[in-house]
Parts: sequence; structure tokens; C-alpha cells
Amino acid sequence: MPLIAEMTWPEAEAAARRGAVALWSVGATEQHGPHLPTGVDTLIPHELSLRLAKRLDLAIAPPQPFGHRSRPLSGGGQGFPGTTSLRAETLVAVVADVVGELARSGFGRIAIVNWHGENVNLLWAGVDRAREAGLLGEARVMLVERVFNAFGPDELDFLFADAAEGFPGWPAEHAAIMETSLMLALRPELVRRELIADDRSEQRPFYELIPAPPEHVAPSGVLAEASKASPEKGERLTGLILDRLEAALREGLDAPPAP
Amino acid sequence: MPLIAEMTWPEAEAAARRGAVALWSVGATEQHGPHLPTGVDTLIPHELSLRLAKRLDLAIAPPQPFGHRSRPLSGGGQGFPGTTSLRAETLVAVVADVVGELARSGFGRIAIVNWHGENVNLLWAGVDRAREAGLLGEARVMLVERVFNAFGPDELDFLFADAAEGFPGWPAEHAAIMETSLMLALRPELVRRELIADDRSEQRPFYELIPAPPEHVAPSGVLAEASKASPEKGERLTGLILDRLEAALREGLDAPPAP
Amino acid sequence: MPLIAEMTWPEAEAAARRGAVALWSVGATEQHGPHLPTGVDTLIPHELSLRLAKRLDLAIAPPQPFGHRSRPLSGGGQGFPGTTSLRAETLVAVVADVVGELARSGFGRIAIVNWHGENVNLLWAGVDRAREAGLLGEARVMLVERVFNAFGPDELDFLFADAAEGFPGWPAEHAAIMETSLMLALRPELVRRELIADDRSEQRPFYELIPAPPEHVAPSGVLAEASKASPEKGERLTGLILDRLEAALREGLDAPPAP
Amino acid sequence: MPLIAEMTWPEAEAAARRGAVALWSVGATEQHGPHLPTGVDTLIPHELSLRLAKRLDLAIAPPQPFGHRSRPLSGGGQGFPGTTSLRAETLVAVVADVVGELARSGFGRIAIVNWHGENVNLLWAGVDRAREAGLLGEARVMLVERVFNAFGPDELDFLFADAAEGFPGWPAEHAAIMETSLMLALRPELVRRELIADDRSEQRPFYELIPAPPEHVAPSGVLAEASKASPEKGERLTGLILDRLEAALREGLDAPPAP
Amino acid sequence: MPLIAEMTWPEAEAAARRGAVALWSVGATEQHGPHLPTGVDTLIPHELSLRLAKRLDLAIAPPQPFGHRSRPLSGGGQGFPGTTSLRAETLVAVVADVVGELARSGFGRIAIVNWHGENVNLLWAGVDRAREAGLLGEARVMLVERVFNAFGPDELDFLFADAAEGFPGWPAEHAAIMETSLMLALRPELVRRELIADDRSEQRPFYELIPAPPEHVAPSGVLAEASKASPEKGERLTGLILDRLEAALREGLDAPPAP
Amino acid sequence: MPLIAEMTWPEAEAAARRGAVALWSVGATEQHGPHLPTGVDTLIPHELSLRLAKRLDLAIAPPQPFGHRSRPLSGGGQGFPGTTSLRAETLVAVVADVVGELARSGFGRIAIVNWHGENVNLLWAGVDRAREAGLLGEARVMLVERVFNAFGPDELDFLFADAAEGFPGWPAEHAAIMETSLMLALRPELVRRELIADDRSEQRPFYELIPAPPEHVAPSGVLAEASKASPEKGERLTGLILDRLEAALREGLDAPPAP
Repeated sequence: MPLIAEMTWPEAEAAARRGAVALWSVGATEQHGPHLPTGVDTLIPHELSLRLAKRLDLAIAPPQPFGHRSRPLSGGGQGFPGTTSLRAETLVAVVADVVGELARSGFGRIAIVNWHGENVNLLWAGVDRAREAGLLGEARVMLVERVFNAFGPDELDFLFADAAEGFPGWPAEHAAIMETSLMLALRPELVRRELIADDRSEQRPFYELIPAPPEHVAPSGVLAEASKASPEKGERLTGLILDRLEAALREGLDAPPAP
Repeated sequence: MPLIAEMTWPEAEAAARRGAVALWSVGATEQHGPHLPTGVDTLIPHELSLRLAKRLDLAIAPPQPFGHRSRPLSGGGQGFPGTTSLRAETLVAVVADVVGELARSGFGRIAIVNWHGENVNLLWAGVDRAREAGLLGEARVMLVERVFNAFGPDELDFLFADAAEGFPGWPAEHAAIMETSLMLALRPELVRRELIADDRSEQRPFYELIPAPPEHVAPSGVLAEASKASPEKGERLTGLILDRLEAALREGLDAPPAP
Repeated sequence: MPLIAEMTWPEAEAAARRGAVALWSVGATEQHGPHLPTGVDTLIPHELSLRLAKRLDLAIAPPQPFGHRSRPLSGGGQGFPGTTSLRAETLVAVVADVVGELARSGFGRIAIVNWHGENVNLLWAGVDRAREAGLLGEARVMLVERVFNAFGPDELDFLFADAAEGFPGWPAEHAAIMETSLMLALRPELVRRELIADDRSEQRPFYELIPAPPEHVAPSGVLAEASKASPEKGERLTGLILDRLEAALREGLDAPPAP
Repeated sequence: MPLIAEMTWPEAEAAARRGAVALWSVGATEQHGPHLPTGVDTLIPHELSLRLAKRLDLAIAPPQPFGHRSRPLSGGGQGFPGTTSLRAETLVAVVADVVGELARSGFGRIAIVNWHGENVNLLWAGVDRAREAGLLGEARVMLVERVFNAFGPDELDFLFADAAEGFPGWPAEHAAIMETSLMLALRPELVRRELIADDRSEQRPFYELIPAPPEHVAPSGVLAEASKASPEKGERLTGLILDRLEAALREGLDAPPAP
Repeated sequence: MPLIAEMTWPEAEAAARRGAVALWSVGATEQHGPHLPTGVDTLIPHELSLRLAKRLDLAIAPPQPFGHRSRPLSGGGQGFPGTTSLRAETLVAVVADVVGELARSGFGRIAIVNWHGENVNLLWAGVDRAREAGLLGEARVMLVERVFNAFGPDELDFLFADAAEGFPGWPAEHAAIMETSLMLALRPELVRRELIADDRSEQRPFYELIPAPPEHVAPSGVLAEASKASPEKGERLTGLILDRLEAALREGLDAPPAP
Repeated sequence: MPLIAEMTWPEAEAAARRGAVALWSVGATEQHGPHLPTGVDTLIPHELSLRLAKRLDLAIAPPQPFGHRSRPLSGGGQGFPGTTSLRAETLVAVVADVVGELARSGFGRIAIVNWHGENVNLLWAGVDRAREAGLLGEARVMLVERVFNAFGPDELDFLFADAAEGFPGWPAEHAAIMETSLMLALRPELVRRELIADDRSEQRPFYELIPAPPEHVAPSGVLAEASKASPEKGERLTGLILDRLEAALREGLDAPPAP
């Protein structure tokens, strides 16, 4: 039972004492097109962490369901119903508090796994605030803000081999091949397969405009090709990510194997 | 499928348009003795909301898993491993952001159900901040900070009829008869029945001391009698609470029936 | 001369050195019906502390005149002229600063006595912030957020013996029997006796609505029966409260007797 | 009865409706040498406002007893027992909240009178924050951060005519001729006349050092000559200040005469 | 004279009225190895904006010299002397204030050009805060957080053609080929050519550890190959960036040509 | 090369090690009439610091270009285009961060020189926050909030000898004799001599009104006589200020001579 929410406090204490890694997923509640649920950014890292707990000794903290506000060119923006976000300062404060509490609980190894691009830099800021306030004590914290930095240029070619446009860049890979495939592998019952469709914003400039013009917002919320997603791609990607995360936790935190 | 996290954005939009109540549980991750998991304060209102969704049209927002810091005489205090809390200002900010986002999403009826005593007044402050910033628009918000205020002096006597000390007051009813009974009814697989035991702090004064002396902290984290809990009490209480919440949402928010 | 505001700094230093308790009342400026002044929540604990200073060695800090915003069902809400409140975050900051300064001044015993329900949890948060920032040093802080928790179920029956509705619960005891009686005992010249009248909000639900509907707001600002108040009740209650506070300060802080 | 704390809410409402000026003194709790109490910065403007209320229609808000932290060269610094201060951000928040609440209460004329040099710019910032947040509505706010700016170079010569060093500048006029004289006129029972003595810091540079060296701190907390103070000087100065404040409130806020 | 700091206010007003773009560079003061000055992240966008002002009508706001804290794998981290950074919340506040003020000044077209990776998402948060607070009015804001998103996969191959390791990714391109080349083109007198050397951290994992181990920190502060930099590469890159920025400002903000 | 922005990090480290004073100018971007640029408050202290670096060993941090919001009677107020300001809390945060970073960089001597009246008390608050958070370590900080406090009543008479109104007080000396003279001496190419004219607000009361009436705002932004400015006055004043600053840094920080 790797979930802290399902542990009693003596069990949490025992996990901390034996060196389990407190792993905290940080996601978002954000539109993911007509075929994926709004919880994708929280569900994916949570499902991955459950699988990772079969390899390593993890104490999984309650996933953070709310992330930083959505941006038009990477998540559709704050105009979609269902998207439920935090301001930047709020997220920084949440991160500082939670990571500080995990350290106070006795966890000397803490890992944060993020699945929402707009959280980048804010998670680091939150951990840094806890560090500066002396809340981390002796704990070591691993921060994975961008899982896909783990992969070289060719390793994920299989994902986009049959895509008409090729790899559109990770920000635009929102509700598209990668996330749809992962959901088909991890939580297939939540994918509305009949509604999978390709879309994109009319423009994909390298800058943003505030307020966002309609040309920057994909009407469906899908920012690239979703139709080329498949469970097989999802399974293969899941395995690759788990391998990298496992290696990272072993290497960076000396994570012990699953008991 | 009443969970916003499992809805697509068009489904969330449809729910908002037809007048569904966006219901948000706010709980905590806090020690609940050797027999209950740390997620009790989040799990209970979430389970209740799932049952309530069979009566009323609800769109259930992701439960807030982290609450205000624990106090010795009502939750054991911040000394237990597993307890993972937010500072007051952080919680206020989270509440303001989330309730503002639910309103922006188009939900005109919003209900917040709290199950953590230390959150009292902070939830109100968060909603008030969103209101003052103009983020609520036309939305009406119902705030249930203390569910047990719904009950008169005699209605819950069945809970404590066989308790040696009688009703110890709600703050001390932590990990005791009421919460254990509810968990036995709602999530029995998470209760370590063999570990249920009575406990209390050596002293239960009307004031607190900072730093807390050992006499104010119950060693096991159970603040009163837990041994008198039963699934039957839990079932009965569940029914009573659901009746009151249903009536409240109908009366205060004109909540529509479940579709 | 127990008031810090009337002490010179060498006198304050001497008080700290001899172990006097720095006592800080936190109140509010909030409507209390047509017969009581808006300062009731600050005046009552201040008057009590002046009487307590005849029993114990106190250094009374300037009472905090502004408290957290008023809520309709416990104070009438923010719609009344004269109510002058702070946001939650502001109050937390004030508490952290003031309690930290009292500790810096050398007071090793600090007591906070609150008389405004909406301040609950915020005072604790403020003290906790000062503690976490290392501002308390060796000082011990006693926090009395709810004085009436000092009393058992029957001890205060005399207050409500002749009330038509009986005890309405402390939140609704606003500008009613208890506070009017205390003011008649402590500051009778400030009570407009000819204007004492009973009132209540049309509804007293267990939840709140934001924005508050008219049914939740008592037109006069009196939330229960005030007409049954009397100076005798106030005197008797004053004595009981002083006994409990005196015992608490002796027990929890080893408060020395008045010099 | 010009004190809002002693008014009922209908009386506060009536005052607002007839155009009374809501006057709020902002002071400090700060050491003022061995002969003056720590409340000087709050007591002086409060006493002045009570006298001003005989000339103009005022509704006097509860004086703010805590001000910004003390600086060595203008108040002795944060090293003295009894000094009880707020951080800058806290004071800004308090000011924004209180002035916003006075406006919400219906006061269209609001005056803030400050008597603590370290509050300068922070009071303006607080009012500006309330303005920017739209909390002031139609209210006009007068801010008097430095009363002595009301006087020309020669008008106050009588204060320093017999001082050995002449006028030391207002920052150094702390617990010295001006404040001692005013206290002798306004609250003579609080002046320890036998302890009046001259003092000053060894150095009075135009800059500050953090941390402050001993040469920047006057051992007694008196920053200039106090021995030349007299009740007569205090009375004369009181009259001059009241004249200027009265003229200012008439001119700037169209303050109505006392009823 | 395109610098707002060198304009009088009537000149700033005239620029705003004729539709000039208020362009604000946000950089950092951060170590850039032994051969580049700490101001690189501010100097480069400022020099670019001066050149851009020959093409478009710009009013250049004072460049922001302090950015978010440095991270080991993209800037060396906070361990180097000279690096002078802001916390995340501070930067968000600065951005909200400055962009709000540019809008208040009458600029209807505002562009923010960032040159510090750790600022990403914080700039967006700052602009969003100003928007939510209503400070932007009718102004349109262009945000360029990552200039290099303007370039396709092959366009910048010339930069890394002769690099032993090829393109290391933009985060690791710190004080390396790209920035050294640009400085050689834009501010050659500030480059210590004799000190240009290659370096990198021992490890370049896809995650970060807090606290950072020595293997994550490049001893010299150079994160990749700097020795392949040249003025020619810098000139060519400068031209490419200016072309993209010019096109972006014309397209996204209808920027008028330089007068 | 005394500018930290132009130093490499090893050069910054060397400067810190040999005891150079890290000098940070804090200014503003604020209207200064039709003849002076908006950068005056930043340009003047920066030019002074460059000259001071010929006398003392300085490491000049990037001048802070944005200061606290402008007030009508000392800077014209927030109504002028070009004025680009920070809220008080933002400035406090910036100061705390930057001074903390200079100390972390190893500078044991830090000097802050301010040229914007509205920054007073906020700079002190920022340094105090850094101190309280333990960010200063062993560093000593000199804070010069008001340079003109360095001068006695007669020393600067030459500035106002031929002024029709004499010395109007430093707050009103905005864009007038003093600043215009200094700019004529320090950055003459930025002075529009043909546009120098006298002006003032219709009223100069000792209080402020929010919102500011037109009578409090000088139409041109010049608050006193500018026409009596001259390069000679500027040169003489420059010399006097440099002498005082040099003496202060030697006396208060043991500043070493320029290398």
C-alpha cells in the first residue's frame, strides 16, 4: 500500500525510517480536448508512480490536482470550462509547504514528478523556498519538471513516425499523440475514442499575446494530432518513462527497491 | 460520471450549463491514529459526495488533499509523521483560486464541504477573497465548514450512547467513534480493526500552548474513544449527513436532481 | 500600571524580567446591535484582563482592535456600518509580528485572549508562523481562542434559564444574552438599555451562502435574545471567566501572582 | 461620543450619513525613554483627535497601536523591551483593510493622522492599495503622514529657544522636547518627571548601518534634549497643531463642524 | 532616442500616442563563466532592442537587471559570486507592476523580451496578474519568453556545426557557443577572449537535486562548449533574431516602423 | 571596471574577497518635467557612484530602475506617462532579495544609495527582512535613504541663493534647481535646456488627498523653480555629495581606497 493517504501514521513513519522515497506528483486540472478528461496531467503521473512503486520503495503523497494557469499555446489557456488552476504564487506556496512537511515527517528522500508544463520553474521555486527556510533539514529532493528531457532526439521517434506533421514540440503535444497514447495504456476507460480528432491552433507563434487572440486557441483544445495515438505507443512509452524514472531515483536518491 | 477530473471539457461545460452544482471537498492529510489512514479527512467527504451525486446533479471537483496545519487538541498536532499540511495563507490562496476558477468555468452553483476543523474560517476567507476580487461573477457559493452544526443536541446521541465518557466535543472526536464509524461504513478496507483502541491526551484544556507540552498530545493520535465505533453507526450517520447535505443544497442552491 | 502602553521601556523590561505574563487581547470592531457599541469584542477581553491583573502579574499589551471579517451567522456580516475588519492574511501577519515582538522584548510568558469567533484558527496560524520563523525563542505562548470551551455543559445554564429559545449556540450568541450581560457588568455606561431587543436572522442554517441572502442577516444585528440579559448574569459570568483564566495562566504558564 | 468603538452601528451609520470625518490615528508602541510611556505615538494623536472632535464632526476609529519597526536614529531601534512593531508589509495590509472598511461603512470623508516617522510612505502605500482595489468607492482620504510639515521654519522656534543644541531635526526629536511637552499637556499623569533627562546617540550620521553599532543607539532611548520640555510648550503646540489640522480638514475634506 | 529613461514625460506620452511599442527586456545578473560578464542575460536583449529600434518604433523601458534564481543545470546555480537573483514571487510582482504601469502610461502595445530561462512562466504569471487586476486596460502584451522557439530545427545548425558535442539543448547553452558569439558581436569589449574555454557539469541529468551535488555544477560556470564561438556566428544569429522579432512585433502588435 | 554587470564571476569574487563595497543605487523611473528624462532618480546616483569608484574600491551592482509609486507633492504622482513604479511590497521584496544575494556573493560591505523620496522606509524594511531571514550573514549594510540629511542648514545655501522662493523643502525640489543642476553637471546631453521652466502645484499642503485634486499636481511635473539651475551649481553639489559619501563609506564600512 504505497499511498500515504491510505497509510496510518505509524506506517508512514516506518516508510520514512526504512528510506522509502516520498514521491509527489504535481499535475493540473486542465482541458485535454473532447476525448480526454481534465485530470490527465494528474492521472498520468499518478498511474506511473503506482507502477514505479512495484520497482522501488515509494510512499506516494496525495497527487496535487491543481497546477499553474494554462497557457493558450501549451494547454489551451484559461478560457475552457473545467480548467481549474492556481496562480503562480499559490502553487509556489503549496509546493514549499508540502515538501517541507514531507521532510518534517522524516522522509529523507523526496521526489517530485511534474506533468504540467506551466508548472516549470514554480516547482523549483517552491522547493527552494522550503530549503531557504530551513524546512528540508537533511532531506534530499529530486525534481523532475520535464520528464521528456530524459530522452534523446531519436528515442521517441516511434511516437511521431506516422504523424503528418511530425513532432510538433512538447508544448504543442497537448491532448495529442503522446498524452492520448498514455491514457489509452494507463486509463483506457477514460478515453472517448470516438471523439479523438486532430486539431491545432490556427497559429503557433513563438510568442504569446495577452489577451490571446482566437488564432492562438485551438477550438477543440487539442493542440496537435491525436488521431495517431495508440495503446501500443502508450505501453511502449510507459515502459521507457518508468525505466528512466527508476534509474533516476536509484542514481540520484539511492532509492531502495520495492519491499 | 460526476468527477470533473474524469469529464472532458465539453462535459464540464454541459454540466455547468444545466445547473449542476460544482462540489468541492476540502480535507487534510493528517494522522488519524494507528487504525485509520492519514487521508480520512479527504476520503470521508469525497465518499459522501459520491453518494450525494446519486441524489443531486453534481460536478465533483478534485478533492483538496492538503488542509491547514494540525492542532494538538483537535488533530494531534504537527508532530506526527504523515501529517502533511498547508500554512493558513496558502490554504486561503488555494481556496480563492479554485472557487474563482469554478465560477469562471461557468458553474453558477458551487458548494464547498469541509472535513477538517483547522480549516474553519480559512475557507470562508478564501471565498471572500475571490468574491472581493470579482472572480465569482454571478455564482452562488455554499460553504459547509462544520457539517455537524446541521444536527441538534439529541440527534446524534446514538453515536455516544455506549461511550464511557459520552460526547467529548467535536474537536476531540478525532480518529474516534464518529470518524472510525464512518470509515467502517464508507471505506472499511482501510480500517485496521485490530488496532482500534481508545486514547486521549493527558490534558484537554480549553487553551493551547505553543510549543505544545506532551500532556496535550495523545500518544497514539486517537483523541477519544474509538472502540465504540461500528459500521452500523457509520451507516446511520452517513444517511443523516446525506439527508442534511441534500436538503441544504436544494434549499440554498436550488440544486437540481441527479440526471 | 499593567498596561504596556503606559509603561516606560525600563518598566516593561522589569516586568519581563520578573516573569510577568504579556497578555494580549484580540478583538474586533464589529456591529453588536442597536444597544451595544462596535467595540464589544475588544472591550470585554480588555476589561477582563484589567480585572485579572489584580490577581496575576500581567503586562497588558495594547488590545488588537481589528479582527477578521464578520460572518453573517455569527456577527452579522460585512454589511453593517461601523464593522471594520481585516482580511485573514492581514490578521495572521499582525499576530505573528506582535507575538514575535513580545518575545523579543523578553517576555517568556505570553497569553493571547480572543473574543471574536471569526479569529479562530487565524490566531493559531499567526503564532505558528512566529514559531516557525524562530521569533518566539524560549517564550511559551498560551492561546485562548474560545473562552467558552472552558465551561462544561451545565455551568452556564444560569445564562439561558429564562431564555425562550434556550442556548442558541455560541456563534448566534452575538449581541445577545451573554455579551449584553457582560457589558452591563463591565461597561454599563456603554449599553443603550432602552434599545435592547431580541432579534435573529430569519434562517440559521448550518451552512453559509456567499453572497449572503437577506434571510441569513438579522436586521438589527442582534442574533438571539438580548432582552434576558442582566447585570447580575454579567457579574456572575465575569467571575467564572476570571476564575478559569486565572487557573489557566497559573497552570499553563506558571503565572506569578500580582505584585 | 465621537469614538466608533463606543458607537452602535446605527450611530456609526448616522455619522457617516451626515458627513462626519472618519479619523484614524496611526501610531506605534515604541520606547520613549525612561520618562515617557511606550504608547506615546498612539496616545498623542488620539488625544489630539479627541480635542479636534470638539471643533469638527468626527467619528474616531480605534487608533492603530502598532506601527512599523523602529529605527535606531529616529526611535531607538528594535532593541528595546516594550517596542512592539509590525513589519512593513503587515502595516500596509492593515492600512488598506481599515481604510477600505471605513469607506465601505459609508464614510465619504476619511482622515489618517500619523505620529510615527517609520510609518511614512507605508500609510500612503496602504491607501493606494485600497484605491487600486476599488475599495474606496467615492470616499476622499486625507493623509497626514508628517504633522510638522504644517509648520514654517520659524513657527515652532519657541520649542527649541532654550535648547542647548537647538532643533535637532524631527527624527531625533524622539522622546525629547516636543513629545515630552505634548505629553505634559495631554497626559501629564503618564510622564515620570523625575526621570526626564537629556541623551542622544554618540553619533548621528546621515546614514544607517545594519546591524546598528552601539554608537547609533542612545542608551536611554532619548534622542535629544528632553529637559527643556514644559507643559506650557505642550499646550501652545497642541493649540497650533489643532488649528492646522482643523484648517486642513475643512479645506481638504469640507469637514462639517462638531454637532 | 528610444529609451524611456532618457525621454521626458511628454516624449513618453507622444510615443505612446503614436503607437510605439513599449519594449521591456527582462534578464538576470548571473554568472556566465570566466570570459563573460554577469550582465549577459540583460545586455543581450538590450543590445538587440537597440538594434530593433532602428526598424520599428520602440519605447524601450529600463531593462530588468534581476531575474529568477539560477538553477545548476541551466545557469550554474546560486553558488557563484556575482549572481544576484530574485525569488519567484518577487519577479512575478515586479512584472505585474511594470507592465501595469506601461499600460497606465498609455502604451497600447507592450512587448516583453526575456533572456533568462529561469524566468519562464513567471513572466507569464506576472502579466496575467496585471490582466486579472484590470491594470492592462486595452493594452495588448506580447510575451517572448523563449526567443529560440522562433527557430526551426535546422535554422541554427551553423551555430553548432563545428561543435564536438553538437547542440546540447538550450538550457545547457549557457555561457557557451550561442551567448559567447552574441556577446562577441554585440559587446565584444566585454568578452575576455583569452579565458574562453569549454566546460560542462560532470553530469547532465534530466532531473535536479536540491541541494545540488557537485556533479551537477560546472566548476567554471560554462555549461557547454564556448570555444567554438565567433563574432561571425554572433552577427548571423543577431540578424536572424532581429528578423524574427521584427516580424513578430509587426504581426502580433501591428508595430509601426521606426520614425 | 567597477560594474558587477561587466565583471565575470571570478572578478566579482575577487572584489568581494578584497573587501570592495558592493554599492547599489536605488532610483525610480518617474516624470521629471519637460526638460529632464524620466530616469533622473536612477541616473544621478549611478553617475555619482561611478565617480565615487575613483576614490573607493566599489563593486557597483546594477542600479534598481524602478522605485515606489510617485506621490503628487514630491514626484507629481502616478498620473504622468513614463512614470513606471512598483508597489511598496514589491520594492521591499526586491530589496530583501538583492541585498541578500550580495551578501551571499561574499560582499561583507554593502551600501545602498537611494535617490527617490518615496522609497524611504521601504529600503530599510527590505534590508531588515533580509537580516531577519538570516540572509545577511556577517555582512554590514549601509543605507543612505536621504543623501541630503548629510548637509547642515547652511551648506547648500548656494543652491537657492538666487531662487525667488528660496528653498522649498526637499520633497518639492523635484525636477527643480537641485536635480536640474546635477543633471547639467553629470549628464548634460540629457537636459532639454530650452524647456527648463519654473512651475509648482497650485497648492502645497502638508497633507495629501487621495484621489489627488488638480490643485496638488503641477501641470508640467516641475514642482519648484528649475530656471535657477546651472552646471556650476551641479558641479559644486556633486563634489559635496561625493565628499560626504566617501567619508561615510570610510567611516561606516571601512571602505578601502580605489585599487
